[in-house]
Amino acid sequence: MLDQVRVLAFDIFGTTVDWWTGVSRQVDEIAAERGVELDGGAFAEAWRDRYAPSLRRVIVGEGPFATLDVLHRESLDDLLLAFGAADAFDEASRERLVRAWHRLPAWDDAVDGLSRLGRGYVVAALSNGGFALLTNLVKAAGLPFDCIISAELAGSYKPDPRVYRHAAGLLDVQPAQVLMVAAHGWDLAGAREAGMRTAFVERPVEKGPHREADRRADVDCDLAVAGFAELAEALGR
Amino acid sequence: MLDQVRVLAFDIFGTTVDWWTGVSRQVDEIAAERGVELDGGAFAEAWRDRYAPSLRRVIVGEGPFATLDVLHRESLDDLLLAFGAADAFDEASRERLVRAWHRLPAWDDAVDGLSRLGRGYVVAALSNGGFALLTNLVKAAGLPFDCIISAELAGSYKPDPRVYRHAAGLLDVQPAQVLMVAAHGWDLAGAREAGMRTAFVERPVEKGPHREADRRADVDCDLAVAGFAELAEALGR
Repeated sequence: MLDQVRVLAFDIFGTTVDWWTGVSRQVDEIAAERGVELDGGAFAEAWRDRYAPSLRRVIVGEGPFATLDVLHRESLDDLLLAFGAADAFDEASRERLVRAWHRLPAWDDAVDGLSRLGRGYVVAALSNGGFALLTNLVKAAGLPFDCIISAELAGSYKPDPRVYRHAAGLLDVQPAQVLMVAAHGWDLAGAREAGMRTAFVERPVEKGPHREADRRADVDCDLAVAGFAELAEALGR
Repeated sequence: MLDQVRVLAFDIFGTTVDWWTGVSRQVDEIAAERGVELDGGAFAEAWRDRYAPSLRRVIVGEGPFATLDVLHRESLDDLLLAFGAADAFDEASRERLVRAWHRLPAWDDAVDGLSRLGRGYVVAALSNGGFALLTNLVKAAGLPFDCIISAELAGSYKPDPRVYRHAAGLLDVQPAQVLMVAAHGWDLAGAREAGMRTAFVERPVEKGPHREADRRADVDCDLAVAGFAELAEALGR
């Protein structure tokens, strides 16, 4: 079933990089500089909670396409009000907070796993992050992707099947020749609907220490692994 | 004038890779296998001659956008007739010839120059090659680009200024923050019209041994260099 696969498409937030740790630390740091008490972890979680609803509005066409930076900024402004911290953050500090999503630590197995997998496959980032965000993030984390594909290029967001089909088209392969690799069942469901193969990577703490991440028992996929090293072994690399 | 620059956008064919040598050798090889006498160098030059006119038809809207692979295939079919060799090349060998443009040798200074420049700038490929072609080419040649931007993403071709502006938009910078690096005056003219800064790289044999390449005396640009090493030095890297 995976013999036809030529391209591995990797989700980024939670799958390849640790957004919870990266965002919560940067929130802590910027809040401290502004002299405000703010729980970076709780703030990061609340920010991420706004993620799916804001994408959904774009997918169903309730609003025009806007990059993730723009959606992050809108939800940030709301959240600072909700956390009673709106007065403490000026324009420049809000811009810095939005850019926190451009600088996130890779999971320990990511660089080595991608290097191994890149010897046998085209390894592509396929994320809802904007093209600029992904370029910055991948460069700063030293992730050896062959190319970066943002949902922005399709003018929609995962899990809209058009995003996955558009990515396969850009790489001039059939969807069945692409293995989507993600730590989220909803992402793999969209990929499967578009005709891709699916690999689930279990990242138990990707939502931080307080919340349950997706677990393999609950996810429908062609392959389930504990990380990128196990993925490389499963694919013979 | 170049202080604002954050992104270096590199042309590929002729600037970063040696299309003449790569294509002519592969034509020689495939022709020999088919038992045909064909001068690979002359064929490569005639093929490249069809390049600008085929792009122009797309830019002015005479036809819908088609990837460079599709345009290469159309001109290949014409040329094989013109060279009296149409009968000798079946479908599979024509596909292989089109794919010759996906496997081209980098100029000697390219990998090291891009590595040095990548320490201070976002280094992007910005080419008329399709996204799949560029991904294959960059991977096979081991070129350390941070991201790949194809004219395909803008639905047009260089030197249409929309292609350069679209690339700057994807990277979330102003055109004046991008330095376009190319061995062709026409490419730099399009970039300048879009508001980018321009660096000319002299590649004296990029059109092969029989034709004159563009020379710095004839090209209007912000910076002219003999190769990627000199470019890195000029930019302090």
